[in-house]
Amino acid sequence: MSNPVREAHARIRAFIHRTPVLTSRTLDAESGNRVFLKCENFQRAGAFKFRGACNAVLQLAPEEKQRGVVTHSSGNHAQALALAARLTGVTCRVVMPANAPEIKRRATAGYGAEIIPCEPTLQARLAAASRVVADTGAVLIPPYDDDRIIAGQGTAALELLEDVPELEAIFAPVGGGGLLAGTALAAQTAARPPRVIGCEPAGADDAYRSFKTGVRVEHAVPHTIADGLRTTLGARNFEIIRRHVADIVLVAEEEIVEAMRFVWERMKIIIEPSSAVAVAPVLFRKAGLAAKKIGVILSGGNADVETFFAALRSSLRQ
Amino acid sequence: MSNPVREAHARIRAFIHRTPVLTSRTLDAESGNRVFLKCENFQRAGAFKFRGACNAVLQLAPEEKQRGVVTHSSGNHAQALALAARLTGVTCRVVMPANAPEIKRRATAGYGAEIIPCEPTLQARLAAASRVVADTGAVLIPPYDDDRIIAGQGTAALELLEDVPELEAIFAPVGGGGLLAGTALAAQTAARPPRVIGCEPAGADDAYRSFKTGVRVEHAVPHTIADGLRTTLGARNFEIIRRHVADIVLVAEEEIVEAMRFVWERMKIIIEPSSAVAVAPVLFRKAGLAAKKIGVILSGGNADVETFFAALRSSLRQ
Repeated sequence: MSNPVREAHARIRAFIHRTPVLTSRTLDAESGNRVFLKCENFQRAGAFKFRGACNAVLQLAPEEKQRGVVTHSSGNHAQALALAARLTGVTCRVVMPANAPEIKRRATAGYGAEIIPCEPTLQARLAAASRVVADTGAVLIPPYDDDRIIAGQGTAALELLEDVPELEAIFAPVGGGGLLAGTALAAQTAARPPRVIGCEPAGADDAYRSFKTGVRVEHAVPHTIADGLRTTLGARNFEIIRRHVADIVLVAEEEIVEAMRFVWERMKIIIEPSSAVAVAPVLFRKAGLAAKKIGVILSGGNADVETFFAALRSSLRQ
Repeated sequence: MSNPVREAHARIRAFIHRTPVLTSRTLDAESGNRVFLKCENFQRAGAFKFRGACNAVLQLAPEEKQRGVVTHSSGNHAQALALAARLTGVTCRVVMPANAPEIKRRATAGYGAEIIPCEPTLQARLAAASRVVADTGAVLIPPYDDDRIIAGQGTAALELLEDVPELEAIFAPVGGGGLLAGTALAAQTAARPPRVIGCEPAGADDAYRSFKTGVRVEHAVPHTIADGLRTTLGARNFEIIRRHVADIVLVAEEEIVEAMRFVWERMKIIIEPSSAVAVAPVLFRKAGLAAKKIGVILSGGNADVETFFAALRSSLRQ
C-alpha cells in the first residue's frame, strides 16, 4: 500500500545520510528496556529537518525552483532548507528570530542562504516571510505544517523500523509536530505498528494540552531550553497526531538537562536539548514500559557548545 | 608472520567494542585529504585504554588473578583496568593523583575499583603503587611501559587498517607512548605500511624531544589541557617509536581546543583533548600531506563536561 513516508524516502534517499542506530548497555539498564536511538544528530545539517526540507524542495516545479524558497525558523529547519536548496541549485532566504542561537545562524549562512532577521514571535516571523514571498515570488516552505515536510520527517522512523522491525514503541519530541506526525505515519507501515509517544517540555506543553482536550492550542508562551520545541503545534500535524499517536508525555527542564548529560557523558555523542526531551521519559522510566524494545528519535545535535569552549579557552590563559 | 598486535586482537576481541570509523566531508575539505577517524571514544570505558588493559589482565596466571591488580593512572587507564578486572572477576586497586578529573575518578569507582589517592607526581604515583604491591601482593599493570599494554593499544590501528587497508598515514597522540608504539607495530602488519605520525602537545613535548635527539627525556613538567598526555614517554615505548614511527609533530594548546570544537560541532561526537591532539595536525594541514588517505586514532571521549552542564543548569534558574 502506498504511504507518503515511503514515497518521501524513495525521493530523498540519495540526498540524506542513512543515520546509525546506537544502543547503550547503561541506558538499557537505567530504562529497564532495550533502547534503540535513531541518531539524526548525524544527519546532514545536524538534524532530522533535512529530510523534510529535501522532500519539499525536490517536489518543486521547475519555475518554482527559479523563484527560490523562503522559510521562517528558529534554526534547524533553516539550515536544512538552506542545504537542500543549495544541493538542488535553488536560492534560499531564511527569516530568523534575532535571538536564534549563533551556531544556527552561522551554519545557515554557511550553506549560502540569505538571513532576514525578525522579532522572536510567530507573528513577526510569518509577516516577514510573507513580505519576502510578495517581494520576490519565493515559494514558502513552512517548517512543519506541511504534508511534504511531515512525510519527509517520517523517514527517520521508517529507517529505524527497517533496522529494528519489532519495536513496540517509538518516542519522538514534539514542537510544531512535523517529526511526531511523520513518525506516526511511518509507524503505520509496520505489520504491527509500534505505539508512538510524543515527548514535550512541560514548559511548552501546547501539544500535550491539544492532545488531551482534542482542541488545538493555537497560542502559547513557551519557556524551555529545548529551543527546537518552542514552536506551536501545526493544524495538519495535530490532525495526524490525534489519530495515530498513543500518548504525549511531559518532561521537566531538569530532566532535559540530565538526559542530555547522560547521552553526552555515557554515549559520547552530542545531542541538542530537543533530542534529550525524547530520551528523558525512557531514561527516567516515565512511560510505564518494561522489558520492551523501544525506539527513540534523537532529533539533532545542534547544541551551542560555546560555553564549554569559552571555559576551556579561558583555562589556557591561567 | 606472527605479530603481538594480531595476537592481542585475537585475545581481546570478544571483550572490546569494534569501534566505528567515521568520516566528515567538512574535515576532508579542510584537511585536503580523505580522513578516517577511528572512534575509540566509543570504546568501552570511553577510551582505547580498555584494549591494553584487557590484553594484560587476560594473560594473568590464575594465582595472579587471585591477588588482584593495581595501577597508577591519571584516569583512562584506571577506568579501563577497573572494567577489564571486573569482567574477569579480579580485584582492582587504582592509585590516582588527587587532581584527576572528577568524571574519571567517579567512573573508576563505578567499575568497582578501590581508589587510592596520591600527590600528582610520577614519583608519588610509583611509590604508592609499590606500597600496594608490597602490602597486598597485587600485580602491577603499568599504564603504558609494558609489552602487553602496547600490543593491546595497537589493535585500534589494526582494526582501522582492516576497514581502510590503503591508508598512507596514521596519526596518533603520544603521552606515555602505549598507543603510538602499538599503532606503529600494527602498521607493520600492512602489505604497504602507512607512515605513523605521533602528535604531541607543545606543552608536553618529551616524546618529540626524545625522538629528535635519540635520547629519551625521563623527566618533564608538562603543561597541557590534554590530561591524558601529561605522562612521560616510556622506555619500551621509545624503543619501538624510534624504530617504527616516521615523525612526531607538536600541537599548540589553542589548536587542541579548536580541533576539539570542530569535531564536537561538525561531527557531533564527544572527544577528549588528547584525541584532538591527533586531529589538529590533519585539520590545520601541519603534516605536509595532500590528497592522501589518512587515519586518525581518536583516543577517547572522557572529557569533563561539567562546565557546560553547570551553565545550562544555571540558565534554568534565570
